[in-house]
Amino acid sequence: MVQWNNLDTVKAYEKLQSLKDHVCLQRVLSGEDGAERVKKYVVPMAAGMTYHYAAKQVDEDVLEALKALAAEMQLTEKYEALYNGEVINTGEKRLVLHQLTRGQLGRDVVADGVNKRAFYVAQQEKVADFARRVHSGAITNAKGETFTTVVQIGIGGSDLGPRAMYLALENWARQNGTFHMEARFISNVDPDDAASVLKSIDVSRALFVLVSKSGTTLETLTNESFVKDALKNAGLDPAKHMVAVTSETSPLAKSSDYLAAFFMDDYIGGRYSSTSCVGGAVLSLAFGPDVFARFLAGAAEEDRLAANPDLLKNPAMLDALIGVYERNVQGYPATAVLPYSQALSRFPAHLQQLDMESNGKSVNRFGEKVNYVTGPVIFGEPGTNGQHSFYQLLHQGTDIVPLQFVGFRKNQAGMDVDIQGSTSQQKLCANVAAQIMAFACGKEDENPNKSFAGGRPSSIIVGEQLTPEALGALLAHFENKVMFQGFVWNLNSFDQEGVQLGKVLAKRVLAHETDGALRAFSELLAI
Amino acid sequence: MVQWNNLDTVKAYEKLQSLKDHVCLQRVLSGEDGAERVKKYVVPMAAGMTYHYAAKQVDEDVLEALKALAAEMQLTEKYEALYNGEVINTGEKRLVLHQLTRGQLGRDVVADGVNKRAFYVAQQEKVADFARRVHSGAITNAKGETFTTVVQIGIGGSDLGPRAMYLALENWARQNGTFHMEARFISNVDPDDAASVLKSIDVSRALFVLVSKSGTTLETLTNESFVKDALKNAGLDPAKHMVAVTSETSPLAKSSDYLAAFFMDDYIGGRYSSTSCVGGAVLSLAFGPDVFARFLAGAAEEDRLAANPDLLKNPAMLDALIGVYERNVQGYPATAVLPYSQALSRFPAHLQQLDMESNGKSVNRFGEKVNYVTGPVIFGEPGTNGQHSFYQLLHQGTDIVPLQFVGFRKNQAGMDVDIQGSTSQQKLCANVAAQIMAFACGKEDENPNKSFAGGRPSSIIVGEQLTPEALGALLAHFENKVMFQGFVWNLNSFDQEGVQLGKVLAKRVLAHETDGALRAFSELLAI
Repeated sequence: MVQWNNLDTVKAYEKLQSLKDHVCLQRVLSGEDGAERVKKYVVPMAAGMTYHYAAKQVDEDVLEALKALAAEMQLTEKYEALYNGEVINTGEKRLVLHQLTRGQLGRDVVADGVNKRAFYVAQQEKVADFARRVHSGAITNAKGETFTTVVQIGIGGSDLGPRAMYLALENWARQNGTFHMEARFISNVDPDDAASVLKSIDVSRALFVLVSKSGTTLETLTNESFVKDALKNAGLDPAKHMVAVTSETSPLAKSSDYLAAFFMDDYIGGRYSSTSCVGGAVLSLAFGPDVFARFLAGAAEEDRLAANPDLLKNPAMLDALIGVYERNVQGYPATAVLPYSQALSRFPAHLQQLDMESNGKSVNRFGEKVNYVTGPVIFGEPGTNGQHSFYQLLHQGTDIVPLQFVGFRKNQAGMDVDIQGSTSQQKLCANVAAQIMAFACGKEDENPNKSFAGGRPSSIIVGEQLTPEALGALLAHFENKVMFQGFVWNLNSFDQEGVQLGKVLAKRVLAHETDGALRAFSELLAI
Repeated sequence: MVQWNNLDTVKAYEKLQSLKDHVCLQRVLSGEDGAERVKKYVVPMAAGMTYHYAAKQVDEDVLEALKALAAEMQLTEKYEALYNGEVINTGEKRLVLHQLTRGQLGRDVVADGVNKRAFYVAQQEKVADFARRVHSGAITNAKGETFTTVVQIGIGGSDLGPRAMYLALENWARQNGTFHMEARFISNVDPDDAASVLKSIDVSRALFVLVSKSGTTLETLTNESFVKDALKNAGLDPAKHMVAVTSETSPLAKSSDYLAAFFMDDYIGGRYSSTSCVGGAVLSLAFGPDVFARFLAGAAEEDRLAANPDLLKNPAMLDALIGVYERNVQGYPATAVLPYSQALSRFPAHLQQLDMESNGKSVNRFGEKVNYVTGPVIFGEPGTNGQHSFYQLLHQGTDIVPLQFVGFRKNQAGMDVDIQGSTSQQKLCANVAAQIMAFACGKEDENPNKSFAGGRPSSIIVGEQLTPEALGALLAHFENKVMFQGFVWNLNSFDQEGVQLGKVLAKRVLAHETDGALRAFSELLAI
């Protein structure tokens, strides 16, 4: 049986705290020892990628302390409990099964009377079959024309992850002959969001994917009505242009309003649902089921690596523990995610949700207030754009912000240009290498305004190219990192009670059941 | 003469520090007193907007201390010095004149032998004339066809601000009959960025705006070559498809490679350049010069409000000082920007650069290290999307993150739908009102996992609709807020030495002039 303990009750944490400011990056990265360190501090990931932590403030002492922490917190055992189907989401009394959408690491998991792996695979096959029929022209609009655009209607986890994944593979798919349909996304309840998308597409050739697990998400149902009105106004039958992704028990499940319904369940949280039908429907329609299968394969391989009890061979666990060291020992309040790949432009927004919604909590899994800080603020933009923007603060600001870089040796689109002796891709890669060292080691200057203190830690994940497998591996890496950090902080990373109060109050505002300051603010906004 | 002093040397700061945790939001916002507070704590802004700070942790005591701080730090006098043309950017020994692109608050400013207001106006007129000739068909492609798309090539301030402004007014312009050309943006040196834009447009009908003040920005020149290759490959003459926005002394200024050149100068930093030709060219081409002029008028009106020495009538100064209280007294490390308007989807990314690049510094304007924290981390996404994402941490995380909301009573696109008794716009507005109160006052629950501690401060800027004037006012408000905070922290908010080291090292990597860890990282990325 695993023991669920608060971080500040375990011995290894005491040891770790004694190692504050233990490593000087300028020193360990200098000279040929520095080069050796770069070659040594690396962990293989799935899809041929590698996780590099030479520019993190760790050494053998810190790593030993992290190993002890991993063991004492039973991280491997807790992950095993999770994938073997224990009730890890204690708040909502649910299993946590998103890994099961892409592979099976442990025992058969049976819930609600069915084998859950078989259930997820069956849904994937249903999606794949539907997508193939759309692509072949077996399913068309009323005029017999093929669908050319797929529009996802969803919010939060039904939007950020699938959108980030779509953007990540759009150029790759075009280049590799697997681009079937353009995808667009409607999420915000702001009517200008839906209006803008609808004005920019041919609705008569569009297929809409409505995503809501409960079938009751207010923003999503509102946008569904918005879209249905637009379809009716164009003389079209909405039921011939929409599919639903929902749970079997939702009001949407059996509705004749949809061409098809694909099912998810309560064991997969929104922010962990990109590898379920929530991501599967739109990605299979856009790029074909085979690309989606490759994406799942990359994630599955990464999930297996996360089960390795050897910390130095487990990239997600190591990344998680270094993050805990930075947050709870070094005291850094935020983390920046900086992919050197334009295709990952919205990946930081997905990680922002994944991380901040999972671990932005003040009570442990038993509902007791914890006495240490938990999830940091997560933000980021692609490099090199960020370099010309907020990197100023990262280099010379008064707070230290740990950095997570991602880079690929090859670009996706197969177009490049040679200027001043190097290609754009080489410039991109040169910049990320340069930034790692600039942050870590800084540079003295007699003008203090031009001095760089250094000592700013970063890690980098490097891959050959952002392929479907690499993307799946990246996604799973961060899901597993967040999971391990939740275990260390003794949080339930799989509920989100913090979003409820706002919903309740908004309903009250709309019903005009308010007084005092809330009424005053509502009047201000003309409600 | 103004005195430039560090924050921790002035008396008013000592007083302010004694007021830590002085105000309990739950108390001051309760009952009818709370409603009165909402009605009282408001400052008029330009374009009919209002700044509301009832949900900030201030009261008469804190406001008195902030007034004393404003006086002792001579904030109004420093702003006067700036707009009267003193050398405020001491590091680079430059005037700071972005306000002069939209109006004249003080004396004539003469530099480089010319009246700078007249210079900026002349450039605006040149842009306006050019845009009108493009729209009328007087300037066309070689086949005599009109240009339909404008593509901005620039990075950092030449990208984030103009892109955010374009997205902010796209729907408004379509709805108001002033939409002339679609705009696209190429920024990243990642070749997939340019490839993706070029594949999605008809290059034969595209006009490219190359933006680089120095004419030497590596990313921008690389992307220019990328675009020129694409034009040549399509059998087109690049010189007939490109204009330049640059300084008069740059190598681009007199080049015959461009249809026209519009000028900026060294007195306007990239992140402050949206109201110069950097924003003016693309926005005038997209929406027409009259819309751009309305945008400038809103900014000018807001600049005038910032000159008011009465803190309670000066929204930018008040916003700035409350931010200093939150950062230096309350100790909050980050600020979230949360516009309840999909059109402002990239406004937070612009503010992230504006704020973090201006005030993310550790030395004062004389190059001496300061002993207090300066600029916070800035991040954000539009509501309601953020509600379904990172708001969990904002509501229940272990750190408090102050919030900056923005909301409008009317949407832009003129389409809406009524569901369950309310429109989408009403739902949007109800949500932001609800969130303010949920953050400020929280809610007790016997289940600690469902408890909200409250005490999380926010302000909101409210407007009738996001018009060009309102957008200009918003932009200027935040520019002036950042300026005032820089004055309080005694920083030079107008240079960015922190971006230099990375550039130097990247060049060394590309020239293969590296050793040790930097060489090892470069090899890893196949450079």
